[in-house]
Amino acid sequence: MPLAALETSLGYKFVKPALLEQALTHRSHGARHNERLEFLGDSVLNVAVAALLFNHYGTLDEGDLSRVRANLVKQSSLADIAQKLDLSKFLRLGEGELKSGGFRRPSILADTFEAVLAAVYLDGGFVAAQQLVERLYKPILASVDPLTLGKDAKTLLQEFLQSRKLALPIYNVVATHGAAHSQQFEVECLIPSLDIKVVAAGSSRRAAEQSGAKLALVSAEAASPTPVKKRSTRARKTAQLTLPVAVAQELK
Amino acid sequence: MPLAALETSLGYKFVKPALLEQALTHRSHGARHNERLEFLGDSVLNVAVAALLFNHYGTLDEGDLSRVRANLVKQSSLADIAQKLDLSKFLRLGEGELKSGGFRRPSILADTFEAVLAAVYLDGGFVAAQQLVERLYKPILASVDPLTLGKDAKTLLQEFLQSRKLALPIYNVVATHGAAHSQQFEVECLIPSLDIKVVAAGSSRRAAEQSGAKLALVSAEAASPTPVKKRSTRARKTAQLTLPVAVAQELK
Repeated sequence: MPLAALETSLGYKFVKPALLEQALTHRSHGARHNERLEFLGDSVLNVAVAALLFNHYGTLDEGDLSRVRANLVKQSSLADIAQKLDLSKFLRLGEGELKSGGFRRPSILADTFEAVLAAVYLDGGFVAAQQLVERLYKPILASVDPLTLGKDAKTLLQEFLQSRKLALPIYNVVATHGAAHSQQFEVECLIPSLDIKVVAAGSSRRAAEQSGAKLALVSAEAASPTPVKKRSTRARKTAQLTLPVAVAQELK
Repeated sequence: MPLAALETSLGYKFVKPALLEQALTHRSHGARHNERLEFLGDSVLNVAVAALLFNHYGTLDEGDLSRVRANLVKQSSLADIAQKLDLSKFLRLGEGELKSGGFRRPSILADTFEAVLAAVYLDGGFVAAQQLVERLYKPILASVDPLTLGKDAKTLLQEFLQSRKLALPIYNVVATHGAAHSQQFEVECLIPSLDIKVVAAGSSRRAAEQSGAKLALVSAEAASPTPVKKRSTRARKTAQLTLPVAVAQELK
């Protein structure tokens, strides 16, 4: 594919197209590969997203900012962005990687996106790279709840119950199935104050507890009174509006 | 202290001095503290140092770049920089922190430096922050060996022996002293091919091994033939010129 198409979707035209070419070159393809660029791009991405969040969420504390950023720059998030940019069409892979489907691998896509960002930074300066990050992340930010993004289900359930001054949930392993190397755990999650009891399974106790917490949270959101704390009111109300109430009732 | 003195040592004059003031305010002092700025400054520092190393060491691979950066931005390195800038004189701490000597604490100094860097970034843009980082780090880079910085003594000794195609060292615990909660370990480090045997002590087996490796490396550098690999020749020769040879002989 001609690189001009990629420049169009990046919204950036390179003074030195060789930089973009190198950013798209996996180490399996040749000596002039993108790994040094990836090192640089990783930190360009981190600061650009940090600045975006710092300005966008003027009251969010540093712990929440860190959590939200970690979620926005994790491998799967970057691979999604790489796919939106159709990076896989422009990737230069060695034969082995080509045959094994390397152009679909999230790690390669994410790394390549970081390298491309470094190329923009080196070619056009920090502001050009920052503008690219802002354009790519603005639509993502629009759909994000910064108070919950990146928190696991057990944490969300615990915070939900604490905000309503209710006792914490109880997790019990009720059964295990299968041989040692492929065990299945069945865990119940109880919230006595809301009369909630759900059962969930998983390949580890932790995984089963997380699944249980997820189900219990749906039920709890449907069943619970208004929150006590003020801070999270808006986010929680929005969540309640979109609740699958019928499912939640069944689960009780 | 008037902030103008700090602006002079930063080489940057603020358009909005309130930003610098906030960067210097610890959370123990008041609500308008520096923790959000610290979040932002951490990533500004990371990218500025990454770019500096990327340009300064044109042939260093991404693994080495990461290791060198990690060492340059670790807490103790930042606390050193903060001290050179006399940041403790400008710190605004709560009473408790003041009494317990918070202005000397490395974590507070390092965090404050990051916050100050974010303040420069917000006030003057990325290039102003990058110039500050370059000015502060250029003298540090001049004294750094990128092939060894941040590697522990056991790794350095192993690499040294491998570069000379010699067998790896042997570590043996030869004695332990003291009660369980304050045990001392004595470890010998042997390099039979160079006829080296040193003994070192530490509060853990790992610590004692590291001390032993450090001593053994000094002896090995004095005793060993020229390296086989080409890449590290220059760095190693420099190290040999500054060796305390008499000490090394004694240790054998």
